[in-house]
Amino acid sequence: MLSGLRSRFVLDDAVYLDGNSLGALPASVPGRLTDVVHREWGEMRIRSWDESGWWTAPERIGDRIAPLVGAAPGQIVVGDSTSVNVFKAVVAAVRMAEEDSASAGGRRDEILVDATTFPTDGYMAESAARMTGRTLRPVTPAEVPAALSDRTAAVLLNHVDYRTGRLHDLPALTAAVHEAGAYAVWDLCHSAGALPVDLDEHGVDLAIGCTYKYLNGGPGSPAYLYVRRDLQPRFDSPLPGWTSHAAPFAMRPAYEAAAGAPRGRVGTPDILSMLALEAALDVWYEGGDGGAAGAGATIAAVRAKSLALTDFFLRCVAAYVPEGRVESLTPVAHAERGSQVALRCDDAGDVMKRLIHRGVIGDFRHPDVLRFGFTPLYVTFADVERAARVLAETLGEAG
Amino acid sequence: MLSGLRSRFVLDDAVYLDGNSLGALPASVPGRLTDVVHREWGEMRIRSWDESGWWTAPERIGDRIAPLVGAAPGQIVVGDSTSVNVFKAVVAAVRMAEEDSASAGGRRDEILVDATTFPTDGYMAESAARMTGRTLRPVTPAEVPAALSDRTAAVLLNHVDYRTGRLHDLPALTAAVHEAGAYAVWDLCHSAGALPVDLDEHGVDLAIGCTYKYLNGGPGSPAYLYVRRDLQPRFDSPLPGWTSHAAPFAMRPAYEAAAGAPRGRVGTPDILSMLALEAALDVWYEGGDGGAAGAGATIAAVRAKSLALTDFFLRCVAAYVPEGRVESLTPVAHAERGSQVALRCDDAGDVMKRLIHRGVIGDFRHPDVLRFGFTPLYVTFADVERAARVLAETLGEAG
Repeated sequence: MLSGLRSRFVLDDAVYLDGNSLGALPASVPGRLTDVVHREWGEMRIRSWDESGWWTAPERIGDRIAPLVGAAPGQIVVGDSTSVNVFKAVVAAVRMAEEDSASAGGRRDEILVDATTFPTDGYMAESAARMTGRTLRPVTPAEVPAALSDRTAAVLLNHVDYRTGRLHDLPALTAAVHEAGAYAVWDLCHSAGALPVDLDEHGVDLAIGCTYKYLNGGPGSPAYLYVRRDLQPRFDSPLPGWTSHAAPFAMRPAYEAAAGAPRGRVGTPDILSMLALEAALDVWYEGGDGGAAGAGATIAAVRAKSLALTDFFLRCVAAYVPEGRVESLTPVAHAERGSQVALRCDDAGDVMKRLIHRGVIGDFRHPDVLRFGFTPLYVTFADVERAARVLAETLGEAG
Repeated sequence: MLSGLRSRFVLDDAVYLDGNSLGALPASVPGRLTDVVHREWGEMRIRSWDESGWWTAPERIGDRIAPLVGAAPGQIVVGDSTSVNVFKAVVAAVRMAEEDSASAGGRRDEILVDATTFPTDGYMAESAARMTGRTLRPVTPAEVPAALSDRTAAVLLNHVDYRTGRLHDLPALTAAVHEAGAYAVWDLCHSAGALPVDLDEHGVDLAIGCTYKYLNGGPGSPAYLYVRRDLQPRFDSPLPGWTSHAAPFAMRPAYEAAAGAPRGRVGTPDILSMLALEAALDVWYEGGDGGAAGAGATIAAVRAKSLALTDFFLRCVAAYVPEGRVESLTPVAHAERGSQVALRCDDAGDVMKRLIHRGVIGDFRHPDVLRFGFTPLYVTFADVERAARVLAETLGEAG
């Protein structure tokens, strides 16, 4: 059950429905960070790279995220921003396709990208295309199956649309990409920690995601990169920093990639943010998907509550808000819904300002979207009812 | 004067000569970080991106570093690792050279890289060369002038050699690179915060550096990128993440680079580490090069003390250590010396273990180098004498 977990977060009287942008502060973080700063940095200093486990943090924390996205250990590494990881993943996928083409004959010269994606994925994919001599072709996820061909090298898709909250069909799309002989790269920013992803089960090739939304890692906390185990020996990073070297402390002039997930590392890991994230993941590790005994969260329980929360919100909005005043962009079908609800209205910017002023925190997405994120770990049904009620009142004033 | 500044750092009875790897904890950091976590993240949450100045932190903190490396404001942005910034800078430099060639005719197809560099610079430059269709040619800094030609696109050099502590002639080498019509990229990891760099004065094109050595930003704290003001409109980033967009919140599918230093940004800034760094820089900002009235550090005072400390260390070593037992790799001439001393001896690995056990913290660099870094902000002459004495005793036992 999740109801006991709200107390593991620092919350106040506001209704916080912006955890899909910045997760609330987990109560486990401040104490851990104090220890990292005072003892590990302040007292142990340089020794901590070894003795406090700083050096191995990227892969250790990757293994803490792994069960939450359905990945066996040893396939995820934490570090850098989501944008930087998109670049690594897309370039690496193109290089794998290049290698395949070399044996198969013919050149795969196209990268497909989700045309509705959060902009950074498109920008980074464009750069990856430019630097690998490919063409970037934006298509909606629905158009992907028809757009795939023997020209397709890689496809970059979002599991959940950041704007509408639509959940895309990862198993079917991944299968279609594979059928075309291409590589599937999934962006999990808006799904990891909110619903089942099952990367291993569906044979996803590469995936990336941030950790500051449903994983509550803190502002700008490091992102992660998943490379399926059997593809790791072929992962040819465009950012082969020294910490991804097979023998980083040998300080050799020639690069030799490490085996396994650490091959996705780049520079010196950002320890303060990384260990704050590690502590933030504690909530999953007491009987949750992490495995130890206790009372932690499981993805299955989170998903069930998430759907119940968004269902309830949509019902309350329908009941309280005059018909036609807002339009939901979020699918009604559970199979197509992430953990947020997006409502369109012409005066969304103004409405969200008023909502925030009244203690209902969502966010506004240009030009006309009200976005409400539901983090099942700490959002309650009472929160949901209040949010819909205040929304209705606010729309009444503003309208 | 710097003597009063030691109390601004958390130190103990050990002699800490590893500030060229991980700077000691500034006393200003823990309180600031507590406030960032509890109030800015925990209470204000998403509002802090705007109201706590999180969004503009990369360029604001860049401006805090600027005076320390002789840069006018608006040319430095903080974020990502040093490795990632090497990639940005080298690719951008090659693209500038490409643009020049397009008008001049002929193609500049070579990148020169310091053959004695810290490995990550070589690895990233190799990737930059591969992805821009150039050839990477490793040469020692001394060989650079002869190696330059109309084939040279960019040159990546270290201001101070990480191994030997040798300070290279930035003004002369930059002038030679410019004479050849190429772009100079400098790695300031081992010089910034320890000696004058004067980027603007010497017309350096691009520069990068870490912040966890002499700037004491904490383990893996974000690096920085300098792009000379007049080159900024031509800075064409290979990692054009959404936060480098001219209008990031318009969420436009087409990329349009921001003006100025923010063009060097990539993904969402890593706030915890970034604001810890900002607080760590306070020591420079009370009468120091930051400009406000008070009693802070200036680079001139730091450099004077650094040379006095390394001179004294070399004298103590000569006096205490039997002749021939160690060999200094660090130049005697001040103009060629950074802020560290590197001593070669066959059993360096074992010797450094013993030194650390006896409270003298330096580090070992494969295969035979003892490295001692002198951070003038907190290393005392008494530390230096003790380090040399303990070194002599240790070498006696081990020899």
